[in-house]
Amino acid sequence: MNQAYVHGYNTRETRRLKNQASALVELLHSDTRYQKGSQVLEAGCGVAAQTVTLASNSPNASFTSIDISADSIAKAKKAVEFAGLHNVHFEQADIFDLPFEPESFDHVFVCHVLEHLSQPVEALETLKRLIKVGGTITVIEGDHGSAYFHPDSEAARLAIQCQVELQRKAGGNALIGRELYPLLQQAGFDSIRVDPRMVYVDSSIPDLVSGFTRDTFTAMIEGIRGAALNAEIIDATTFDAGVRDLHRTTESDGVFCYTFFKAIAAKS
Amino acid sequence: MNQAYVHGYNTRETRRLKNQASALVELLHSDTRYQKGSQVLEAGCGVAAQTVTLASNSPNASFTSIDISADSIAKAKKAVEFAGLHNVHFEQADIFDLPFEPESFDHVFVCHVLEHLSQPVEALETLKRLIKVGGTITVIEGDHGSAYFHPDSEAARLAIQCQVELQRKAGGNALIGRELYPLLQQAGFDSIRVDPRMVYVDSSIPDLVSGFTRDTFTAMIEGIRGAALNAEIIDATTFDAGVRDLHRTTESDGVFCYTFFKAIAAKS
Repeated sequence: MNQAYVHGYNTRETRRLKNQASALVELLHSDTRYQKGSQVLEAGCGVAAQTVTLASNSPNASFTSIDISADSIAKAKKAVEFAGLHNVHFEQADIFDLPFEPESFDHVFVCHVLEHLSQPVEALETLKRLIKVGGTITVIEGDHGSAYFHPDSEAARLAIQCQVELQRKAGGNALIGRELYPLLQQAGFDSIRVDPRMVYVDSSIPDLVSGFTRDTFTAMIEGIRGAALNAEIIDATTFDAGVRDLHRTTESDGVFCYTFFKAIAAKS
Repeated sequence: MNQAYVHGYNTRETRRLKNQASALVELLHSDTRYQKGSQVLEAGCGVAAQTVTLASNSPNASFTSIDISADSIAKAKKAVEFAGLHNVHFEQADIFDLPFEPESFDHVFVCHVLEHLSQPVEALETLKRLIKVGGTITVIEGDHGSAYFHPDSEAARLAIQCQVELQRKAGGNALIGRELYPLLQQAGFDSIRVDPRMVYVDSSIPDLVSGFTRDTFTAMIEGIRGAALNAEIIDATTFDAGVRDLHRTTESDGVFCYTFFKAIAAKS
């Protein structure tokens, strides 16, 4: 795997991922609990935005969390230490070349990773080999085509489309959430159950207005301004109008909708 | 109110609405229960697609169901008789000129109606006057901008956009679901809570593949072919390709997503 990580690796991005994680933890992860003694592989842990929640919610399971970036692993270790957790072991590794024996794990957990890969089915097949028969895989991905809002705005839709285009140019797929069912099907998993987690935000839920609409989604779009202009996908005026219109959806009469897809499937 | 009902009034449309109702009853209506003795106004009952469920789920409440179409009222009466229900009274009436005294009802229920109105806030204000202080309004609307699917298809998106355009030309708004919060806000309701009901369909749920993707949503788009071509919004080749691509999403690797918005608000 040798792909540019489209979101970048700077400090602001780290903070954005942490904000995202804290606002969405309940929605995405509260129903993921692993039994005592389970060996769980978290493939693509990044800076441990999800790892802390995962490991806290299943204190008697053992987690092996891998990421391709040594820098992310260093940050992830600190985050897990800071949380006082002792059930996570980190390794720097490539998801397509993992240093584990077949059927080493009871369960695999993959969150916000497949969107960055040009060969998501191959990644799922690789992970499947590592799961014991009867074990499960949990996959969580967003889908930028699920973003819509009030007031509606052509410019905002075009600014979001820049992220889809950049992800595509980097070999990934920002519309992958809706595809989890066929991807898991193709990789040979069974008992696939996809459960969308829609984030609906209006001004009666101020924590989500700030934590999700502004600091997660709009911040992500703002963060690709340079890349989008460099790639000549959009002009600066339209992009900036789009970002302004995304901020407009955080006002008292604004609404913002986005859907994450959570899938659980079995290896039989 | 003098607006063409964009879906039309033919028998196929009646059957489509019934299919839609039966596939979605649980998702949309199962949590709507009115207390014994409640007087409930259902504004815009159509052919009673929702009325039967509403009245069955709250057998000790009394429903007054109105619609502007005498023909729909006649069909609605038959449907309610056929279901053996005795707690529904029908009247033909215009939502903007209702023959009821202020504060006549404990609750108001409006489903798939506002999308057809050019003045939804005024309609909500009119209905608000009929509700007793402390009573509630329940509003359910779809949002065609919430439809996305796999495989993705530009032609399918354009065919759906025809419905949005036709609705707009008829004075309505097919993207109204996301706007329920600001609309209820503008109409002066309090304690507004919007609860999206996302319909996620993949081939592991064959009842929804047929009942929703094919017989409800795709059938609706197929039904506007003549109107869309007459209005010159689209060419026949693109429209037909779009409908074919919507059917494609019903295959074993296909996925279809759509969201209804259910809002409950209080008059205080």
